[in-house]
Amino acid sequence: MTATRFPDAASLRERVQTVLDEFLARQDHSLAAVSPDLGALMEAVTELLRGGKKLRSAFCYWGWRGAGGADDADDELIVRVGAALEMFQAAALLHDDVMDGSDTRRGRPAAHRRLAELHRTQGWKGSSDAFGVAGAILAGDLCLSWSDEMFTGSGVPDAQLARGRGIFDQMRTEVMAGQYLDMFEQVQPSTTVARARRVIRYKSAQYTVEQPLVLGGSLAAAPAELLARYSEFGLALGEAFQLRDDVLGVFGDPTETGKPAGDDLREGKRTTLVAAALERAGEREEATVRRLLGRADLDESGVADLRQVIVGTGALDHVEQLITARLGEALAALDAAPVTPAAAGALRELAVAATSRAA
Amino acid sequence: MTATRFPDAASLRERVQTVLDEFLARQDHSLAAVSPDLGALMEAVTELLRGGKKLRSAFCYWGWRGAGGADDADDELIVRVGAALEMFQAAALLHDDVMDGSDTRRGRPAAHRRLAELHRTQGWKGSSDAFGVAGAILAGDLCLSWSDEMFTGSGVPDAQLARGRGIFDQMRTEVMAGQYLDMFEQVQPSTTVARARRVIRYKSAQYTVEQPLVLGGSLAAAPAELLARYSEFGLALGEAFQLRDDVLGVFGDPTETGKPAGDDLREGKRTTLVAAALERAGEREEATVRRLLGRADLDESGVADLRQVIVGTGALDHVEQLITARLGEALAALDAAPVTPAAAGALRELAVAATSRAA
Repeated sequence: MTATRFPDAASLRERVQTVLDEFLARQDHSLAAVSPDLGALMEAVTELLRGGKKLRSAFCYWGWRGAGGADDADDELIVRVGAALEMFQAAALLHDDVMDGSDTRRGRPAAHRRLAELHRTQGWKGSSDAFGVAGAILAGDLCLSWSDEMFTGSGVPDAQLARGRGIFDQMRTEVMAGQYLDMFEQVQPSTTVARARRVIRYKSAQYTVEQPLVLGGSLAAAPAELLARYSEFGLALGEAFQLRDDVLGVFGDPTETGKPAGDDLREGKRTTLVAAALERAGEREEATVRRLLGRADLDESGVADLRQVIVGTGALDHVEQLITARLGEALAALDAAPVTPAAAGALRELAVAATSRAA
Repeated sequence: MTATRFPDAASLRERVQTVLDEFLARQDHSLAAVSPDLGALMEAVTELLRGGKKLRSAFCYWGWRGAGGADDADDELIVRVGAALEMFQAAALLHDDVMDGSDTRRGRPAAHRRLAELHRTQGWKGSSDAFGVAGAILAGDLCLSWSDEMFTGSGVPDAQLARGRGIFDQMRTEVMAGQYLDMFEQVQPSTTVARARRVIRYKSAQYTVEQPLVLGGSLAAAPAELLARYSEFGLALGEAFQLRDDVLGVFGDPTETGKPAGDDLREGKRTTLVAAALERAGEREEATVRRLLGRADLDESGVADLRQVIVGTGALDHVEQLITARLGEALAALDAAPVTPAAAGALRELAVAATSRAA
């Protein structure tokens, strides 16, 4: 028996980071030749990509290994495909923060705020905020193009890559569509749990777990039955993950989430948590939600009032039960999946970590 | 001798439009299955792509034909690559209009204004403008992903497509970089003709003519010498085209440009025209420019004052001379290029049309 090289979560994340760093260094080199003024734009992208859990690349990697993809030189190619997914995620976050007007991301100022601050400290002309927004839009556009460049240039042979192209394309379209629906829900007069779950499905559940996993599997020529199990596992886990994210967005510790406490409430996000609270609310509780949700100036005591409604109506319990149920479904699908034992172990670990109460 | 099928500008444009329409109809079908609420997003994209001169697809097509690419079934594949370039251009315009805060595009309301108006008339919650901006960002993101999907899915065989991939990637990165530099120049205390021309080069000159032409040539395996001539022709013509666009942005007829008169002045664009005026301005003229350029509330009489400075300093004459000189260089490069006679004729016609005084 030969020893298996078995990348743990941290070392896999490091390999993905190395691919990203090398790619960005090459781009930085080309762009510096165009103009040194592009430095701030590159920095915004580089800074963002230094953080994050890099879940999508991990699911892509294990989707491939689980389908029998070898732990040899080829596995570097799949790490590169995973890095392309992280680059796409960076684009989504850059634009999301502009659209939501978020101040922070991963505990640091969001890119548009960082660029606005540069404008301000340099005493440049015109609006600092407009400069920041435009810079972050362009930074996101660069990441979108680069994601594709990294995917196509991963070194995975064309015929093999073609098997994953459909899911890559579908993922990109559906994430944008999901983000539009998210924003659309926020401006509607009311919401329902069913509508909030539809947003979750397209914006996040498919994209966080299922699509990366199926992509990795497709590249390893996984049989249809395995891909179907991956989908079951991925959709259930992706929803559990998003629900956990929603809970952390209201009850999470800011030092761990990297976002101010109650930020989701201030932005008026129509999460399943909020929808469940509204469905269960009495008149007075409903009035509290209508009065406070989405107020940009919501203070600590307003956050506390909304938390009280979410707990008091039983919405938090309901969502915690949903998380447990979805995680259970995901793990059952994994047990039934014909994956290699190493991949089963790694995917189980990822599933539990992604939905645990710590951020 | 067999008769040559010889697509004129209008019929080529129609073929590109058909490819775009068919692609969009497929996406519309998929997105409608996700949610009917996505209709407005699709409409914004479809509406934008119905207009425009479709210059980039024309240059791509003739770059390919000029390098000996045949006028047979394969030429449909190049039309599809050209359509991918138009999809990329749509993304650039959607985001550009958000960044510039432009009200109109191609004579119609810009996408972000159209979506803000929908929000307003439906009486939805929150800020109509923020909804419009977010929708247009997402519409642009969709177009960016779709551009890549169309390029890769064009049907051009992988090995052949790989020859054009580098230029496609470079184009995307440099357009974003150029847009950032454009915005960067607008907030600097002063500008020079040299700096304004650097912006033109990356934002527009390479991208409008040179890169599509070289892309088409590369796909037809053009020899290095022809590609070098294409570059010469394309860079010179691209700059002439952008200079013409700058002149039309100040002096053009709104019914032909699709933009209100003097819109570039209102947005404070640091064009070569403005830079040339400032370099030639006396004290009083400089004061007029500093007082009026970039004022969102600039009225007819303010536009007239600025025009007067641009004419009076000789800046307009200077730029008209630059246009004539660049067009001459472009045509000389074309004469020296070993292209097929049909392509030479078509490229000459495109060059003259793209830089003529009519919009």
